[in-house]
Amino acid sequence: MPAFTTTRQVEFSETDMAGIVHFSNFYRWMENAEHEFFRSLGLSIHMKIDGQDVGWPRLDTSCTFKRPLKFEEITTIHIFIETITPKTVTYRFEFTKEENGEQVRVAKGRMTTVCVTFAPPSGKLTAIPIPPQILEKLEPLKEPEAS
Amino acid sequence: MPAFTTTRQVEFSETDMAGIVHFSNFYRWMENAEHEFFRSLGLSIHMKIDGQDVGWPRLDTSCTFKRPLKFEEITTIHIFIETITPKTVTYRFEFTKEENGEQVRVAKGRMTTVCVTFAPPSGKLTAIPIPPQILEKLEPLKEPEAS
Amino acid sequence: MPAFTTTRQVEFSETDMAGIVHFSNFYRWMENAEHEFFRSLGLSIHMKIDGQDVGWPRLDTSCTFKRPLKFEEITTIHIFIETITPKTVTYRFEFTKEENGEQVRVAKGRMTTVCVTFAPPSGKLTAIPIPPQILEKLEPLKEPEAS
Amino acid sequence: MPAFTTTRQVEFSETDMAGIVHFSNFYRWMENAEHEFFRSLGLSIHMKIDGQDVGWPRLDTSCTFKRPLKFEEITTIHIFIETITPKTVTYRFEFTKEENGEQVRVAKGRMTTVCVTFAPPSGKLTAIPIPPQILEKLEPLKEPEAS
Repeated sequence: MPAFTTTRQVEFSETDMAGIVHFSNFYRWMENAEHEFFRSLGLSIHMKIDGQDVGWPRLDTSCTFKRPLKFEEITTIHIFIETITPKTVTYRFEFTKEENGEQVRVAKGRMTTVCVTFAPPSGKLTAIPIPPQILEKLEPLKEPEAS
Repeated sequence: MPAFTTTRQVEFSETDMAGIVHFSNFYRWMENAEHEFFRSLGLSIHMKIDGQDVGWPRLDTSCTFKRPLKFEEITTIHIFIETITPKTVTYRFEFTKEENGEQVRVAKGRMTTVCVTFAPPSGKLTAIPIPPQILEKLEPLKEPEAS
Repeated sequence: MPAFTTTRQVEFSETDMAGIVHFSNFYRWMENAEHEFFRSLGLSIHMKIDGQDVGWPRLDTSCTFKRPLKFEEITTIHIFIETITPKTVTYRFEFTKEENGEQVRVAKGRMTTVCVTFAPPSGKLTAIPIPPQILEKLEPLKEPEAS
Repeated sequence: MPAFTTTRQVEFSETDMAGIVHFSNFYRWMENAEHEFFRSLGLSIHMKIDGQDVGWPRLDTSCTFKRPLKFEEITTIHIFIETITPKTVTYRFEFTKEENGEQVRVAKGRMTTVCVTFAPPSGKLTAIPIPPQILEKLEPLKEPEAS
């Protein structure tokens, strides 16, 4: 069961001269799906908690591409929470699209984010334990461990 | 020894509200460094060879982030060729910046690209063996295998 | 009466280090609103008509900025069709957001697009009269002339 | 005489499915040329002056497109300072490229920027008179008025 599912329609400015979505957009989409997911839980990816700016910069990101996406195609994005550590969350993103009546794999991505406080514009980031009011909403949605 | 080295200065539009470079830009920069590398060899990432459009879509991309980059900072990007298979090339990208007189690690990325012919705007891609005129320029720059 | 109205929520990657939306995104949003508008009419901004690729490159674009937009704010975008000539359409875009219970002006933009056939990847564009199946849908939505 | 001249080579991610540069990139390029111009004067578009963050948000931007740019083409960007008021500067940008041995017009843009102090991440901007240490460098480069 995904923790969250959303969709995205390919915009013209996201295509490149090969006639398909430029791969860098998959990273913007993953981040954005994560943010929609947070909002669906009544959270924000960028919150004031106890007077501090709390954010989630990326530690590690990756994506494997299976099929191209074209202008105006709609991709479904499933988010799975793979791992939660005291200061980080690792998500898996599965992108599919409809082809001949069935959903086929488009791409699969992963992001590990770290919970920090930050003070713009200095850019200084300090990792902190995930605040309990966020953790208690993410934990129940974690993917069960394979056994 | 890197196969190629270039630099990049952070643009304003590449920063985000956290006061640092948005991570998705590292992927654009990796791709761009690859393209500069191709040009430095007298090639293009998008060439006509024997009347066909030859391109290099990405199969797999990843990046690990160590330190943030800020507006107007300059990052040095080293490209290493890790692996060449009949139809693919895997690059490693090391991003550094100067801090107190020495180069410190900013990020490390990897991209596996596949050689294809394509016919825009259909977006249809067909993997092909790397053409000899490209292969003979990449091979000598491949990183020696660790033993 | 706007010809079409849509909304857009500010994404993290659209902000910059000043903590607000980078102005270049307003141009992507205008284009995107235009494309949604076309889809709402059963059209596409990039259609095959009589076997030819028909598109709408921009001739002239402009935007005036009144108030900044921040992360996760929602802007309402109204499209007005100001002028239709045999080969071009001029749109006006009004961006607003809610502030203290009322809609306030965020930005106002304009785009003149020209109907062309094109043959990627050559990039060769040829202006053509707006095809009747498109024109008959745009004409009735044109703003009445001030008198 | 332009106040400053720079060049830009089209990146793959800046192209779209029509095989040409997506128009929104011209706005990023104008801004970037402005920032290079500031650096060439020993300034930054985002400076601390008397302990305050001073920046230059855009009030008005526009661009007219004459010829498309394709992947790897190089455009020359000339900046002209058209007008300086107590709190604003208006620039004109002329984009050209080489075609058959001569420079042909690609696009012409305009940007009016306003000098502000700002306090991220609140996004609050306050217009201020252009500080003298900036003004004295811009004034001599202003285009002479047509008479």
